[in-house]
Amino acid sequence: MNRADGTPDPGTPDSGTPGPEPRSGRRRGRPAGSSRAAGEPSARERIVSSARAEFAARGFDKASIRGIARGARVDPALVHHYFGTKEQVFEAAVEKAFAPAFGVPDEVATAERGQAGERMTRFVFGLWENPATREPLLAIVRSAVNNETAARIFRGLVARNLVTRLAQSLPGPDPQHRVELAVAQLVGTAVLRYVIKIEPLASAPAEDLIAQLAPVVQHHLTGEGVPGAPPAGSAA
Amino acid sequence: MNRADGTPDPGTPDSGTPGPEPRSGRRRGRPAGSSRAAGEPSARERIVSSARAEFAARGFDKASIRGIARGARVDPALVHHYFGTKEQVFEAAVEKAFAPAFGVPDEVATAERGQAGERMTRFVFGLWENPATREPLLAIVRSAVNNETAARIFRGLVARNLVTRLAQSLPGPDPQHRVELAVAQLVGTAVLRYVIKIEPLASAPAEDLIAQLAPVVQHHLTGEGVPGAPPAGSAA
Repeated sequence: MNRADGTPDPGTPDSGTPGPEPRSGRRRGRPAGSSRAAGEPSARERIVSSARAEFAARGFDKASIRGIARGARVDPALVHHYFGTKEQVFEAAVEKAFAPAFGVPDEVATAERGQAGERMTRFVFGLWENPATREPLLAIVRSAVNNETAARIFRGLVARNLVTRLAQSLPGPDPQHRVELAVAQLVGTAVLRYVIKIEPLASAPAEDLIAQLAPVVQHHLTGEGVPGAPPAGSAA
Repeated sequence: MNRADGTPDPGTPDSGTPGPEPRSGRRRGRPAGSSRAAGEPSARERIVSSARAEFAARGFDKASIRGIARGARVDPALVHHYFGTKEQVFEAAVEKAFAPAFGVPDEVATAERGQAGERMTRFVFGLWENPATREPLLAIVRSAVNNETAARIFRGLVARNLVTRLAQSLPGPDPQHRVELAVAQLVGTAVLRYVIKIEPLASAPAEDLIAQLAPVVQHHLTGEGVPGAPPAGSAA
């Protein structure tokens, strides 16, 4: 059921233990990758992983190139060398955190017409229910909610890689608008369930939520009606 | 159309201009209200307004009692005197920012059964489309998204004053769960429209969104079906 399997996210085990601050100039501006063992992440990969952790822990405003470099065990000059500005490191981190979610358009494009809402909803819940994909997504959303620059970068990436591509497989007018109403239902559910953690939503089984939300997502995507589900136990 | 009229939010004109920092001891611990002119906000009101602005500008983590006191032109000791801790000032600020939204349950309770979704959706958009009510709400949501303590306070207030009260007027099982799915659709729309500002949603006329979302909100609240809206201009 978990469709997040096989995503390119390696879990970045080494960014979780940044260790003590490397004070003096070790590996100044030198790509650590040049002498790394096979299978070890490259310096660039370590920087992106560290950036994700830094933005998650401190937000876009407070995150620093220096802190990112420290977490990646490289010199700050190397972060500038690979990415330029903090904004560009952020964009790379967003792109990596969102890479699994960018599978949604293919999921919808390959679905039979009547199944698009269910496929999209199930795929998205697969990403959220797995902490390895959920936490990076939440971290990025937190940053974007709190900083106008981060919001702009986030907006551009989501528009290009998610909304526009999803809209391409939908017939009818205003497909981007429809996609966004569907995304709104899912994003709002994520905010209440995983961030605010309001009950009973936070503890509801994912399968129940998929069953309840898929018809609504289908409605937004395709304009199909939603079958009534009159509350059992009450005829009022 | 704007249902936010008549809310208790006075716009807090004086918290917008905190002025230069009062360095030395002016009005140390003295309620400024004792000599204020008629119609001027009390020191307590000024503190809550200043707290809202401080939490909005700096987030829960970075906001300080000292900064709140400065914005309210009172001594920090007075903030402690009225509210105790930063958490308690935050709770008062959330409560004030959300006061207009706490009108939603009455709006739904007094609606005819078939109109609950439309009344709730229109009421909520009325709050959002008015910057005087939108900005405080967004500021609080930003704080809650970024801090576990703020999220807990926010969760408690929303559960007590919004979800539980709304659920009381709904028949059938799991009314709180249903309310939260409806709120999720609206909150997600707000995040995309007012925070991330993704197009075309950000520029869509509010009336269009109300027309599109009210049937979905009605579905979540009551279990009623949503009529199909097959995309015009395409039979695919």
